[in-house]
Amino acid sequence: MQKKIEVANTLLDAFPFIKEFRNQTVVIKYGGAAQTQPHLKEQFAKDIVLLYLVGLKPVIVHGGGKRINEYLEKLNIKTQFKDGQRVTTKENMEVVEMVLSGLINKEITSLLNSHGAKAIGISGKDAGFLKAIPKDDGAFGYTGNITSVDSQVLQKLLDEKFIPVIAPIASGESLGHVGYNINADLAASKISVALNAKKVVFLTDTAGVLDKEKNLISTLYKRDIDSLIEDETISGGMIPKVMACLEAINGEVQKAHIIDGRVEHSILLELFTSDGIGTVIRKMD
Amino acid sequence: MQKKIEVANTLLDAFPFIKEFRNQTVVIKYGGAAQTQPHLKEQFAKDIVLLYLVGLKPVIVHGGGKRINEYLEKLNIKTQFKDGQRVTTKENMEVVEMVLSGLINKEITSLLNSHGAKAIGISGKDAGFLKAIPKDDGAFGYTGNITSVDSQVLQKLLDEKFIPVIAPIASGESLGHVGYNINADLAASKISVALNAKKVVFLTDTAGVLDKEKNLISTLYKRDIDSLIEDETISGGMIPKVMACLEAINGEVQKAHIIDGRVEHSILLELFTSDGIGTVIRKMD
Amino acid sequence: MQKKIEVANTLLDAFPFIKEFRNQTVVIKYGGAAQTQPHLKEQFAKDIVLLYLVGLKPVIVHGGGKRINEYLEKLNIKTQFKDGQRVTTKENMEVVEMVLSGLINKEITSLLNSHGAKAIGISGKDAGFLKAIPKDDGAFGYTGNITSVDSQVLQKLLDEKFIPVIAPIASGESLGHVGYNINADLAASKISVALNAKKVVFLTDTAGVLDKEKNLISTLYKRDIDSLIEDETISGGMIPKVMACLEAINGEVQKAHIIDGRVEHSILLELFTSDGIGTVIRKMD
Amino acid sequence: MQKKIEVANTLLDAFPFIKEFRNQTVVIKYGGAAQTQPHLKEQFAKDIVLLYLVGLKPVIVHGGGKRINEYLEKLNIKTQFKDGQRVTTKENMEVVEMVLSGLINKEITSLLNSHGAKAIGISGKDAGFLKAIPKDDGAFGYTGNITSVDSQVLQKLLDEKFIPVIAPIASGESLGHVGYNINADLAASKISVALNAKKVVFLTDTAGVLDKEKNLISTLYKRDIDSLIEDETISGGMIPKVMACLEAINGEVQKAHIIDGRVEHSILLELFTSDGIGTVIRKMD
Amino acid sequence: MQKKIEVANTLLDAFPFIKEFRNQTVVIKYGGAAQTQPHLKEQFAKDIVLLYLVGLKPVIVHGGGKRINEYLEKLNIKTQFKDGQRVTTKENMEVVEMVLSGLINKEITSLLNSHGAKAIGISGKDAGFLKAIPKDDGAFGYTGNITSVDSQVLQKLLDEKFIPVIAPIASGESLGHVGYNINADLAASKISVALNAKKVVFLTDTAGVLDKEKNLISTLYKRDIDSLIEDETISGGMIPKVMACLEAINGEVQKAHIIDGRVEHSILLELFTSDGIGTVIRKMD
Amino acid sequence: MQKKIEVANTLLDAFPFIKEFRNQTVVIKYGGAAQTQPHLKEQFAKDIVLLYLVGLKPVIVHGGGKRINEYLEKLNIKTQFKDGQRVTTKENMEVVEMVLSGLINKEITSLLNSHGAKAIGISGKDAGFLKAIPKDDGAFGYTGNITSVDSQVLQKLLDEKFIPVIAPIASGESLGHVGYNINADLAASKISVALNAKKVVFLTDTAGVLDKEKNLISTLYKRDIDSLIEDETISGGMIPKVMACLEAINGEVQKAHIIDGRVEHSILLELFTSDGIGTVIRKMD
Repeated sequence: MQKKIEVANTLLDAFPFIKEFRNQTVVIKYGGAAQTQPHLKEQFAKDIVLLYLVGLKPVIVHGGGKRINEYLEKLNIKTQFKDGQRVTTKENMEVVEMVLSGLINKEITSLLNSHGAKAIGISGKDAGFLKAIPKDDGAFGYTGNITSVDSQVLQKLLDEKFIPVIAPIASGESLGHVGYNINADLAASKISVALNAKKVVFLTDTAGVLDKEKNLISTLYKRDIDSLIEDETISGGMIPKVMACLEAINGEVQKAHIIDGRVEHSILLELFTSDGIGTVIRKMD
Repeated sequence: MQKKIEVANTLLDAFPFIKEFRNQTVVIKYGGAAQTQPHLKEQFAKDIVLLYLVGLKPVIVHGGGKRINEYLEKLNIKTQFKDGQRVTTKENMEVVEMVLSGLINKEITSLLNSHGAKAIGISGKDAGFLKAIPKDDGAFGYTGNITSVDSQVLQKLLDEKFIPVIAPIASGESLGHVGYNINADLAASKISVALNAKKVVFLTDTAGVLDKEKNLISTLYKRDIDSLIEDETISGGMIPKVMACLEAINGEVQKAHIIDGRVEHSILLELFTSDGIGTVIRKMD
Repeated sequence: MQKKIEVANTLLDAFPFIKEFRNQTVVIKYGGAAQTQPHLKEQFAKDIVLLYLVGLKPVIVHGGGKRINEYLEKLNIKTQFKDGQRVTTKENMEVVEMVLSGLINKEITSLLNSHGAKAIGISGKDAGFLKAIPKDDGAFGYTGNITSVDSQVLQKLLDEKFIPVIAPIASGESLGHVGYNINADLAASKISVALNAKKVVFLTDTAGVLDKEKNLISTLYKRDIDSLIEDETISGGMIPKVMACLEAINGEVQKAHIIDGRVEHSILLELFTSDGIGTVIRKMD
Repeated sequence: MQKKIEVANTLLDAFPFIKEFRNQTVVIKYGGAAQTQPHLKEQFAKDIVLLYLVGLKPVIVHGGGKRINEYLEKLNIKTQFKDGQRVTTKENMEVVEMVLSGLINKEITSLLNSHGAKAIGISGKDAGFLKAIPKDDGAFGYTGNITSVDSQVLQKLLDEKFIPVIAPIASGESLGHVGYNINADLAASKISVALNAKKVVFLTDTAGVLDKEKNLISTLYKRDIDSLIEDETISGGMIPKVMACLEAINGEVQKAHIIDGRVEHSILLELFTSDGIGTVIRKMD
Repeated sequence: MQKKIEVANTLLDAFPFIKEFRNQTVVIKYGGAAQTQPHLKEQFAKDIVLLYLVGLKPVIVHGGGKRINEYLEKLNIKTQFKDGQRVTTKENMEVVEMVLSGLINKEITSLLNSHGAKAIGISGKDAGFLKAIPKDDGAFGYTGNITSVDSQVLQKLLDEKFIPVIAPIASGESLGHVGYNINADLAASKISVALNAKKVVFLTDTAGVLDKEKNLISTLYKRDIDSLIEDETISGGMIPKVMACLEAINGEVQKAHIIDGRVEHSILLELFTSDGIGTVIRKMD
Repeated sequence: MQKKIEVANTLLDAFPFIKEFRNQTVVIKYGGAAQTQPHLKEQFAKDIVLLYLVGLKPVIVHGGGKRINEYLEKLNIKTQFKDGQRVTTKENMEVVEMVLSGLINKEITSLLNSHGAKAIGISGKDAGFLKAIPKDDGAFGYTGNITSVDSQVLQKLLDEKFIPVIAPIASGESLGHVGYNINADLAASKISVALNAKKVVFLTDTAGVLDKEKNLISTLYKRDIDSLIEDETISGGMIPKVMACLEAINGEVQKAHIIDGRVEHSILLELFTSDGIGTVIRKMD
């Protein structure tokens, strides 16, 4: 019976969070170990469907670098990276789109559906809701920068109680066959701003932002980011993550979270426990 | 961290129940220790508001025997019981109504509101939604039997996202000043049937229905009730409780629960854990 | 036949008033003789239901001083008045709430329902729609001043075609068990302002505001009130009534009426005949 | 003051009728003196707008024989009657339509609007809502019998809070230019049936149906009509009126009224006083 | 097969126009040959119903000078013109209204209905939606100038999917029996402005506005109108047409069209082909 | 001008079809030359968007055999056919899904969007709306037979004015990662039945069903199909097409069309000209 009472108390502890997030949109960038290890995948799906059931509106944006590379290799197609970004040739782009929209997107969608959601997998080409232009005047081929997000399209899917699962591919301005390969972190940020989301959450393979002593920074204020980059506390692959967070909070998303996708149920823990498990980045102190 | 994971798992265990009860109406008869002991009252309120937040529609029906007796005594008004039911004189009735509708009802309503609900306290006289005639041709004075429940009135309050808290007083057929004192258990059953509720839950000061060896019967099927009463396994004050349950399930309420209100968070445990804590009474095996 | 034609003409005379008040909210402070004498009670109920049927939205606020005193006396509980206002001790407050919310409120609700309305009796504790703080820093105990009115709660009841009957009890800011005893006249004014009502009507046991010669002042303009108080034309118990009217018209309620509840059908006569029967207080001349 | 109280009592006497007719459709055949004498016209308009304001949905069907004859004469066009019905030649029909739809219909519409209604004048040709075929295989020229009523068209106008004023002209089955001249009494009956109206009221220049002693028959049951026609109690021009009533009550309209349009406010008196002023014809005893 | 492909191409050429005009209101002044020659009438009706089916909301305003004159003559009623406008005596007005509202209006309505529309014929007296005062202080009798258009009335009919067909008669300010004779071109302009229409189209018996060499001016800009009138390029009966167009575009109607009603399907050609067939008048260059 | 009149006449000829199909759902199986030749693709897209604009609700189901084979070859993955159906190994299935959902589906979606539609590309895995079991107990590997269609999912997309573009992949009954390869013709039939579509149209690379003399059969009645198969008039690849049509009309789809996708604008011609261009299969004669 003691155990049962603990159960009740745990449910009740989640109470203020459920109240706070009710009917709020939360954009989740899904990637890393959480997307590849079977038991983490299952737990991710359970978390998302629970969020959905207690009244949040989750929107999933996913990446898929590794699977793309596998297929490029199998097909003997060369690909090149510049400053950590793929230079997406036309030949690359067909594979990128096929793997992102055709394989990974539907895999995530099925995963969520098998746990009781009604998820719909789309890319930014659907209803032309993401438009892009070539990054750096084409220096990266069909790698693009988002120029507009038609949030109405996503809003209609949310209104019909679907969970949108988004492959980071955008249309060109003319909406034709051409597609652009978009960085998934930046897609998540842009979408969270367009949807006026409460939160954007980045699932990563690190614990969060760490300080000089490698301890987790639980809350990181906007005003402190510049100096932490300057003194190289924030460095390497963490810089673009933090930049994506900044983009979101500059666009009036209240909080951006960087959390450890390798931890079981990390999303639930971050959203539904009082001290969370990763780093939250916010504007105000 | 281990503790945090347990937290997540607990939340996820509640998952199938949240899914099942979403948008379902549950009528709860509130009484006994849960209504008088301060810490149980707080926990009851938290439970109800949590149910409400995760999508159930709770409807509360309360009793109030002890407080009525206190006031009758203070006012030197005599009262008489016959077969365990009050013979409600006109003088009694004024005090019954005053204490039920004016004191207890508003106390429960305030309790729920202080935890974040929008509860509205009414009696069956409001909008004349409960009508009654005198029990046994008036042998019990103004103690009445419900003849009709206008579920539209409660439905409108539920549609507006209010939690109805109901004092078991009914109007006469002509809707005038006269009121009838109604047994709260039977009121809860009748209301659960009229609302086509998923469940009716009776909070009591016992563990549930016990077998000959005083062990809890977790599930009690309708077909077995008669013989259990005959062999006096079910006896005394438990008989009217079980009869109220029968009334509900005969009226197509799926399950009727008798649970121990003395246990902290008993409602949450009964509804959101797989084996519950009390006795569930149902039609089908 | 001549009489029949007069009947038709009377109906037609009411015509412009019906047109003017259609879909308008009117708050009525119900008290005095109209609340205690049986035939006046019946006539009051008929008037309110007629208003309702021809398209107005009546909201009733009632007092109940005498019945409270009766019960305090029966229970041997002392009560004290300071400047005409009750100093509400905790012991007093339980009786105040019990009598107002449990007896009088339900009596009025039943009365209206028996004439064909769907009335719902609530107090300011329901859905926490009236909040208050102690008057004069607690000098009057649990006598309170309203700090906010959640008009949404009343609006929802009006939208569902209920007539709200309101006992003047408020919650504290924290919505808990504590209740505050509110002056019914001021409650009516505050509520009329929050609902953006067309009118607030005070049923009293006087003909209205009288001039020096004891003749009725039919229309009293805001600008003249100060001097009438100064020269004691308005004095005694009429001052707080007029102050309650001022509160309403300062809050953009168009007209505040003080009428004689001892006159049969006084509400109907005030609202549906061209010169009315009492005093109307308004801003503009 | 005594007079004022009578005013209130009159209003309250109308109360049960207002309650009964709320949101009910009433079809009124408007004709005779009430349509030609200026002061009766004004009173008719006031009555209709009052019905509208207290929640009824009036639908007006008018005739116009005299004005048609005036214009036929001015234009030197011959017209012929057979069994009391006009044999409507093509030349006649243009004048019939012009006078009914263009003059009389708009005159009534304007009259109602000037008293505060939103009346819209149409004929059965509008949206082709009345269809007809030639009466007696064309023996009466363009005099027609209604074959269908598209009640949706009227319902849409009622939903938008318009009062439809209907000229008794119908389209042919092919909806083209051809129009049919329809007996206004029969049009009113057919329309009342199609709208599932509560009542149909015929304004005439007689007191109602009279018995052998020339006393008014207040209530006439369906089962008695045949014998009253046989013994010539009902005779002459009253026969088609009574037949139109029968058509309505056979089509499940509850009551058909024949009232004296020469009496001021006859509609109001018939509908809003307990014994009415004319003859009501109904199915059941 | 070649012919079939041309069919498809024609349909597709109409495509951008269908897209552009979807859900837009277009007011059409209907008059001249298109209103009198049988085959042009049929084609007009087909055009309007096609517009309606592909998603436009057509509103028809018609004139009727010739038929009015015919009837005035038949009735030996004199009429007088001053500056090209009828001086409408009271005697005239009855005939004007009768012919416009009773004959022509219903003829057009029937025509549209016989091609599958749900048209409703009204005049500005219906629901009092057009109000007018006498032109030039009464110098033209009951010829009036529109002072207000209640667009709500038309909007409600459009919302219910009716095509309004409007006779240019207005009520006086008091909405009574008096009617005013309104110039149909000006009525169309005023109504197009009140409805915030996309276009107003005038069907005439000329090709459009011609230049000095008698060639059609396809697009006429507002800024050029004054000089074209001054040098008499625009003269005679074209001046009031152009003035009516100006009234519309000054009221934020995007384009006003003067087209040749003698050409078969002129409306369809003007709206659904890229260069149109008449003159379009617009604000901006 | 003569040419312009022809334009108008062509538009008007389409009129009865536009009227008939308004708000009707039409399922189109898209494949063959129309899906591969650039100018046919453009014309297909224009046709679909025109259908959409004039009020139909198109739903596109596509195949993609050739592109799948190309990729299987590039990846050196063997595939095997049995009775004309692919034996879909697990390795095959990944490629099938990737090419159908990732490449072809998004290509068609982009094509429609570039012509002004809001198309959304999904597969049967999205919201799990198509469920399947292995064909012939697994004899064809992951080639499946549809067991249910959740038409609600498509209906919600249609309600939001999207054009659904569907890749013929289905979920298993448990909605997990496994997908089934579905014959696109049968998918189109099943979906047309579930949506209660007006029509299903199959775009093929033949003129339609031909008779013994190789002349087109314009209308083929259900009752004649068996004998035509028996005498081998219908043979080879036409048999499964006709079977798919039969499935649809047995499921109460009114008409199934087999048309020549190699003809420009074949859909428009089939739907919007009176004799069409292919074979229509229907139940009744």
